[in-house]
Order: sequence, then C-alpha cells, then structure tokens
Amino acid sequence: MESGRHAELETYIADKLKHARRASRALVVASTSLKNEALQQMAEALWDGREEILAANQQDVRASEMAGQPPSRIDRLMLDEHRIRQMMDGLVQVAQLDDPVGERLDAILHPNGMRIEKVRVPMGVIAMIYESRPNVTVDAVGLCIKTGNAAVLRGGREALRSNIALVRALHQGLEASGVPSEAIQFVERVERESVDLLITAVGLVDLVIPRGGSGLIERVVRHAQVPVIETGVGNCHVYVDTAADLAKAREIITNAKTQRPSVCNAAETLLVHKSVAGAWLPEIVPHLAQLGVQVRGCEQSLAILQDAGCRNVLAATDEDWSTEYLDLVLAVKVVDSLDAAIEHITEYGTLHSEVIVTESEEAAVDFLSRVDAAVVYHNASSRFTDGFEFGFGAEIGISTQKLHARGPMGLREMTSYKYIVRGDGQVRG
Amino acid sequence: MESGRHAELETYIADKLKHARRASRALVVASTSLKNEALQQMAEALWDGREEILAANQQDVRASEMAGQPPSRIDRLMLDEHRIRQMMDGLVQVAQLDDPVGERLDAILHPNGMRIEKVRVPMGVIAMIYESRPNVTVDAVGLCIKTGNAAVLRGGREALRSNIALVRALHQGLEASGVPSEAIQFVERVERESVDLLITAVGLVDLVIPRGGSGLIERVVRHAQVPVIETGVGNCHVYVDTAADLAKAREIITNAKTQRPSVCNAAETLLVHKSVAGAWLPEIVPHLAQLGVQVRGCEQSLAILQDAGCRNVLAATDEDWSTEYLDLVLAVKVVDSLDAAIEHITEYGTLHSEVIVTESEEAAVDFLSRVDAAVVYHNASSRFTDGFEFGFGAEIGISTQKLHARGPMGLREMTSYKYIVRGDGQVRG
Repeated sequence: MESGRHAELETYIADKLKHARRASRALVVASTSLKNEALQQMAEALWDGREEILAANQQDVRASEMAGQPPSRIDRLMLDEHRIRQMMDGLVQVAQLDDPVGERLDAILHPNGMRIEKVRVPMGVIAMIYESRPNVTVDAVGLCIKTGNAAVLRGGREALRSNIALVRALHQGLEASGVPSEAIQFVERVERESVDLLITAVGLVDLVIPRGGSGLIERVVRHAQVPVIETGVGNCHVYVDTAADLAKAREIITNAKTQRPSVCNAAETLLVHKSVAGAWLPEIVPHLAQLGVQVRGCEQSLAILQDAGCRNVLAATDEDWSTEYLDLVLAVKVVDSLDAAIEHITEYGTLHSEVIVTESEEAAVDFLSRVDAAVVYHNASSRFTDGFEFGFGAEIGISTQKLHARGPMGLREMTSYKYIVRGDGQVRG
Repeated sequence: MESGRHAELETYIADKLKHARRASRALVVASTSLKNEALQQMAEALWDGREEILAANQQDVRASEMAGQPPSRIDRLMLDEHRIRQMMDGLVQVAQLDDPVGERLDAILHPNGMRIEKVRVPMGVIAMIYESRPNVTVDAVGLCIKTGNAAVLRGGREALRSNIALVRALHQGLEASGVPSEAIQFVERVERESVDLLITAVGLVDLVIPRGGSGLIERVVRHAQVPVIETGVGNCHVYVDTAADLAKAREIITNAKTQRPSVCNAAETLLVHKSVAGAWLPEIVPHLAQLGVQVRGCEQSLAILQDAGCRNVLAATDEDWSTEYLDLVLAVKVVDSLDAAIEHITEYGTLHSEVIVTESEEAAVDFLSRVDAAVVYHNASSRFTDGFEFGFGAEIGISTQKLHARGPMGLREMTSYKYIVRGDGQVRG
C-alpha cells in the first residue's frame, strides 16, 4: 500500500476506534432497560429501512453474480423480507435475555473488614472481522449492545452495500433509544490493511473476534496483537467403539455428517473400532452414500468395503485426516482401540467437538476426560455444539481456544469482570 | 541469528514443547492426591538439593556482581536457606489449596434429555517467560502442577545456573511422586530467539504468561501468536475527592506509595480535588517527603506548595503522568472535579488498580463503576491487589487485560473448561 494512502487509512481507523471507546464509556453505565430499548428500536429501524436495505443488497448480489460467485455464496449474501424479519427477531430475543453485566460473580470478606466483590462488566470495544453474511452485522451489534460493548465491524467486500444500509438503520435505532450511535462503528474500507490496523490496535480494541473461513481466522490469530478469540474451525470426529449400540451410531453419524454439512460442528471423520468395522462398515457406508456422502477410507476400511462389494469408495490420503470438508464427504478410519481413536483425534482434531458412541461407561469416561475439545459427547451428535442448543439464547461464535471462552459463546462470554473493593481506610501492613 | 543455529534452536524448542504436551495429557487425568504428592516431593527435593542450588546461585550472584548489576537486582537474584524454605512453604501451601480441576461450573438439561455439564479442566501447556527472580521458577511450577498444566519455563540469563539447579531438584521430586518429570520443561537457551519461538508456537502452547519489566511484557504481547495474558504494569492512582476524609487519605496515599514502592500495585500519581488541595497538599507533601518521597507536581500544586513554603518539589512533565516509577517518586495533580479525575485515569491508567478516597457514596459509586481497571477501591490502599490478600492462596501474576482473567490470578485463572454432553443417541432435528 502506498504510504500516503496508508497514513490516511490509519487516521480513518484510529478515528473509528476513538469514537468506539467514547461510546463504550457511556455503555458501561447504561441500564439494562436502556440497552433493551436500543435493541427494540434497532429492530424497528431495520423494518422501516427495509426497502433501502434490500435495494443495496440487490446491488451486492448482482455484483457477486457478475463476478461468477457460486450459488452457495450468493445465498449467504442474499437478503429478503423474511431474512430481515429473522434479524429483527434476533434483536428482540436478545432484548429478552438476562443482562449479564452487573452480575456478582464472587464476594470475599477480607479479614480487615474490606468487602471485595467480583462483578461482571463489559469487555469495552469488540472488533468483529467477518466475511459475506450480512446478518452477522446485525447479530454482532445486538450482542455487543446488550453486553454494553461498543462494536467495530469489518465485514466483507461482497456485502459492503448491504452492511452500510443495515448499519444506517441500526444507527437510527440507537439514536431513537438514546444510546450514542457511535457505539456501532462500521469500517467501510475493505482493503486488507484495515483488518491489520484493527487487530494491532493495542489498548484501543479489547477483543477481536474473527468469523469466517479458516484463512481469515488463521490470519487474524497470527497477526493480532490485541486479545483474540479463535472461532470456528471444526475437524470433528465420531468414534464408534467396540461396545457401541450400532443403531445409535448410525443415527449419530448420519446426523453429524448430513444434517448440515457446511457448518463447523458437522463430523468430518468417522473412526470405527476394528471389532465392529467388518460387519458395520458395509452397512453404514451404502446408507451414507444414498444420502449423497462420498466416503474416503483408510486401507483397512477399503479392504472391508471392497470385500463387501461396496463401490465408489476412494482411498483416503494423509491430507484427508486434517481436512474440514464442510461438504458431503467423510473420511473413514478403522482403529485398533479406544487409545488409537484418542490419539488420532489428538493429532488431527481442532479442539472443537468430538463424539464417542459406546454403551461402556468406562470407555465413555476415558474418552470424555482425555479428549481435549471444547465439547465432548457421549452418544449424541456433534451438531449440538451451538449457543442456542446450549440454552444461551444467542451465539457470537464457537471458540476453539482455551483462554477465556470455549465452545459456544453467548452473552456471558462477551464480558469481563472487575473487582470492587470497599473499605474504611484500610492499608496494607 | 545464523540460520543453522536457528534451525537447531527451533528443534530444541519443538522438542521441549512435544514433551510438555505429552506430559499435559497425563496431568489432565492426574488425581488431586497425586498432584499434591508431587508438590510435597518437590518441596523435599528442594531441601535435599539445597547445597547444589545455593552453590549454583552463588555463581549467578558473583557473575552479576562482576557485571556491575545494582544491589536491588542482586538481591532479587540471591538465594539462601531461608529463601529455599520460603519456596518450599509455597509448594506445601499450594498442595493445601482446593483443586479447581474437575469443578462443575454449570449444568444444563437439554429439552431432549441430554445432560450438558461445564467442567473446569487444565489449560494444557503454559509457557512462563520471566526475568531474574529464581523463586518464579518454583512458584510457577507449583501452580502449574496443581492445576494439571505442563510448565515450559524460560527464565532470565542472570539466574540460569540457579534455575537449572532448581529444576533438577523439582524433576527429582516429580519422579519420586510418579508424575512424569517432563511436565516441567526448562529452556536453557537464553537467547532472545528462544522467547520468539515459544510465543509463536500456535497449537503447542495454550497460554503464555510474561512476568517481568514492561519491556519484556510489551514484547511478548506484541509478538505472541499464542494466547497471552498481559501482566503487571501498574500506573495506579489515588484520587482524593472533595468529600474525602483527609486522615484516611493520608494513611492510604502513604501506604500506597511507600509501603513497597517497587511493586505494580503501588501508587504512582496522587490526584487531589481542587477544593481540598490548598489545605491538604502543604500537609501531605512534607509528610511524604519525610518518608523519602520525591514529589513531581502539576502547575497548580506547585503554586500551592510554593506558597506554603514547601521546597524540593519538582515540576511534573507530561511524561510523569504515564510513568510507572516503581520508586519513591510521586506525581501530584490538582483536578477540578471527579470527572476530571476519571478522565485523567482513563487517559494514563494501565487498567490495574485505582483508588478513590471519599465519604460521598454517590462519588464512590460513580468512580467505581466508571473507572475501567482490574481493581477499583473506595477508601482502601491499592496495595491490596494481590492473590493472597484476595484469599486465593496463591498468585501467578496480576492481569491487566480483560480477556479471561483480570487482576490477581490464582489457580482458577490457570484453568479452562470443557463441555461434557451425555446423551442416549440424540440427534439434531
């Protein structure tokens, strides 16, 4: 980037962050009812502005079509009245959730009489870096406002016009409620450098959350100097144990692979204990194939399947074990033991969601305690890793790191805490 | 660094991290009694190895003396039997604390019958980057082992021989207990690049905690690609309000500035409301001067003090407001209002510990809710920001960031959590 333009971009971003910080100071003392009013007003403003939003969105969609984007990507980008209603419903639902801010997390009485309280507070300024879905704009703003955080949004180029129109409406909603509209800062500059500036703004951004493909997430994690939460990449396994109920195993792998293959909590690899592989693989693989799943098997599973006359099974390469297909593709591996399954998951998993299917309590406990992942399942589908399924009422993403938040992140995970100490002149001896 | 040597260092660090990861898998399922036994055995091993440790330490001390290091730095480095006893007591005390691992943090019953439990688990592999104090080696190992984490230690060059001897003893203690000794990895290579390799080992290090001066901490925060907790830098303020009890204010600023000026929770700036400055500053400044405190005043305070005949007060420059002196130096500023005090703290504070002295409940609430810091105090000294004072029984550092942990960090703050989901074949509809 040419240096004059870079300096100008720096000023542009610094200005956004300064306004966000100022708004965050107002939000930190905003009452729950004021924040809920803001959410309601933003929902109404989306409806009032729907024509403008849809017109802007049509321009984005047309540009993506002209650029030859695949239909799945265009579908993610597209808005209609139904989707605007869904975004509005999201805001109203968040308004109905309990406000985590102000919650007393702990109370300690010091022997000298001081009262020490640990109280939940907003994080401050949260930057969201995301890609093509314009609904992320509205979702993120709703969750940030509810938790008293200022939001700095950097969406993808494809959705720029849609996002600008959405943010205009959201600003109007905030203004109508009395919350400073600068609590939402939208970065219209979609060059790569605007991301770099946001994620290195030490002291100005309290948290950055990337949402999108693995390329985006990895870039943010590697280059961020501000605190970051790694979200999303899920190379999830279903392990069918020697003591598995194979009917449950069939339901679970079918659901985990096919119910919505494009999401991070879908299964990518099926691990099968050698004692059940011979009988079960020739049953399950044709079943999955009928549902459109392409299987890539290890040597042992290929031999079993070929003996059983199953065709259309490809040989898995080493790359398959670490691939998040996000598609109707499933890697299959026969393992010698529970230990071997755990070792495979340890080597290739992404700490997201891991499943054991077994009727053995001992095997289950071993798997659940030893497998290092945000969510570990015994006899249930990995597809449940989701803030709504966990009863949080909202979700900003699924964390695959261990610092601060793990697994589905709801409102609580967007907060920090502070200690409030009340004394009567106490000093340290 | 020459590339052959760099490659060799990379291999050296990768090897340490591989062993740490393997140990962390054993530690994650280690019982509380096994971990406590390890702590006891390590304490005994320190005593058994004391002669070797003290001999090694004498070499370090002599080298530092020859290099002309200041006495304060040599004191930090020096060990004797009493200090070895203190380190042993630390390990034994940690053994007596509750084990946070396995604690059930939440339980959710899904409408479909699945039981979702949120359970505290170790972080995994924790890297500590620190400077001259060899006791950090023992403290960090004790806290890591108790919380089921493998520890990768990178201490300073000055304490290298002492640390090697300490780690040798700690390894013997671990072996005697049955915990794999590779749970403690000590990095003997003290070149700067070994730090760079540790803090960029994405997927191999779950958390890095820097402890030391602001230069070290800033470098780690800026260059880390693995999750990091920023610790320690404290530019703390005491604000004396218009409604202050000036006797309390005197006790508090005296304690916060002079009881132990070299630590991060000591006060660096005194803010005084203009309504009390005229009468109080000529009283408090000579009192502090008698205790050896050098005052650097704003224009207004200088005028007041000169009128009152106080000498030896220097003029503060802009730099003073952002300086963590860690010494018997105090910046003094007269402010027009509570708002002005909060603004000053917002601009110059480091989110560590901030104090208001007032008898006005309204002013206190305003300050406590609006000042963004890990610990906010009403009528008490900032010196209480400490894991032991907060009743944690231990402390790995004081966090000045908002992600994950804030303020004093004890055992709980060295853990993560996972969700354990128990089903009976549930799939998502």
